[in-house]
Amino acid sequence: MNAKRLSGVLSPAITPFRRDLSVDPERYARHAKWLLANGCSGLAVFGTNSEANSLSVEERMSLLESLVASGVPAAKLMPGTGCCAFPDSVKLTSHAVKLGCAGVLMLPPFYYKGVPDEGLYRSFSEVIERVGDARLRVYLYHIPPVAHAPISIPLIERLLARYPGTVVGIKDSSGDWSNTQALLDVFKGATFDVFAGSETFLLANLRAGGVGCISATANVNPGAIYHVFENWKTSEADELQAQVSATRATIHKYPMMIGALKALVAHYGDDPDWVTVRPPLIELGADKTRSLVAELDRLGFAMAGLAQSTARV
Amino acid sequence: MNAKRLSGVLSPAITPFRRDLSVDPERYARHAKWLLANGCSGLAVFGTNSEANSLSVEERMSLLESLVASGVPAAKLMPGTGCCAFPDSVKLTSHAVKLGCAGVLMLPPFYYKGVPDEGLYRSFSEVIERVGDARLRVYLYHIPPVAHAPISIPLIERLLARYPGTVVGIKDSSGDWSNTQALLDVFKGATFDVFAGSETFLLANLRAGGVGCISATANVNPGAIYHVFENWKTSEADELQAQVSATRATIHKYPMMIGALKALVAHYGDDPDWVTVRPPLIELGADKTRSLVAELDRLGFAMAGLAQSTARV
Repeated sequence: MNAKRLSGVLSPAITPFRRDLSVDPERYARHAKWLLANGCSGLAVFGTNSEANSLSVEERMSLLESLVASGVPAAKLMPGTGCCAFPDSVKLTSHAVKLGCAGVLMLPPFYYKGVPDEGLYRSFSEVIERVGDARLRVYLYHIPPVAHAPISIPLIERLLARYPGTVVGIKDSSGDWSNTQALLDVFKGATFDVFAGSETFLLANLRAGGVGCISATANVNPGAIYHVFENWKTSEADELQAQVSATRATIHKYPMMIGALKALVAHYGDDPDWVTVRPPLIELGADKTRSLVAELDRLGFAMAGLAQSTARV
Repeated sequence: MNAKRLSGVLSPAITPFRRDLSVDPERYARHAKWLLANGCSGLAVFGTNSEANSLSVEERMSLLESLVASGVPAAKLMPGTGCCAFPDSVKLTSHAVKLGCAGVLMLPPFYYKGVPDEGLYRSFSEVIERVGDARLRVYLYHIPPVAHAPISIPLIERLLARYPGTVVGIKDSSGDWSNTQALLDVFKGATFDVFAGSETFLLANLRAGGVGCISATANVNPGAIYHVFENWKTSEADELQAQVSATRATIHKYPMMIGALKALVAHYGDDPDWVTVRPPLIELGADKTRSLVAELDRLGFAMAGLAQSTARV
């Protein structure tokens, strides 16, 4: 994988579906390019907000290939590759390495609950060993509110001791700043990049030694979030952070945020089919979309150039 | 699928792995045949206790084909086919229908949490519509402690109204008898077969109108559980139920029950490799196995004919 490590603002790019629920590689590439042109330094494709687990392994591989073929540099990509079944994780991870991706964002297996650290250690280890490629860079994906399989600090210590230079970071989507702070404290000095799982914690994360954020709302607000990253050492930083936090909080009020993100891309991009989600998710719906857009308009929210981008087929 | 509906004692057959973690079709067929010869009327292969979600789609299809090819009648099989990604569920379900399986046991998509009933309805509907085969018989798999995606009574009502004769039953692994009782009350008179998810509730389920149980511990104790089913109208029933409940409770004390079940098959079948699990699960270990076996020996537990069966390669 690429030697240059990612930092800054990464978007777990949402995945467009046609009305028949098939994946739409062209819309996907357009959105990816808009994100990279508007503040994102990389794309954590196939994350929670990408509906990655609603895609088959074949769909994920094919979509990743199409993205790279469209001109998106693999060195800016950190695809999610962690599945319940390790053969799937091995297949997706090997594929990402061979494509030249910057790294992979690896969920633990998430079906069984209450699994001991030993089991999670074996899960990550099995994938790393079977991929067996020195180019592999693994970012751990800690998202206990969804996966219900937390990645503890002792587990990370064990993985770092055994796979230094391969296990290189984490996305902390716990929503719990004290956990992010603990990660930064414990792994200070190690080659271990901590991304906040939401821009709400971006400034705090940067000040405490983290490298950026990987955030769902970076799908719609990448520019403003990038301004926090770009200016985090300036006197403006707190005000910029407050602005992006307000936007995030507004969107976050709409449950199943993925539907809201897609509704916003459909609205501001003037591209109605973008609202489509795969089950078990449901669309935000017209009424809630109007209400969300009205709230965001009052905050001065915009998605600059998106309509032109989506029209640029 | 087969017109005759399954009832009685079904085992979510555990899946044997070689030491390199590859699936072992020969051991699998031997265990399946032992189960069917010792009290199981059917096999709910690829359930939670089968480590189904630790297998790739291809591994599941190949293993099911090998099982049928080994002589296990498809009409006795109810494979689990519900995945997070509906294309996977469609593929596995179509495959099971074409093989002639009695039905499929369908998990809801289990990655996202807090999904509304509408989303789960669409999930099941999407699979049923795309499989598009009149032979399909769907048993819903309600296992909120693991999947965290409960199947509510209003959701079932909606599915039964839209897909009568296709959605035909449920496995209730809530562990909550009041939920099983509610299902039996609400769907009395409908073509909707309620299986308890544990033999602990077998007698209560049969007395209240249910059709049997699909239970992890039927992997090791099928004969005694069958005796409850066979004699549920007799004066012996409560005593027989108490015996199987005691065995269940003993095994259930060992966390991650799958490791315990495999340890028991390895011990009583004199076939050590059976202990192997895929990550994120871990084996029970020698000490706990000795302790579990000692407890079961005191209860007079046995797995008749298993050693001969496993030796019969």
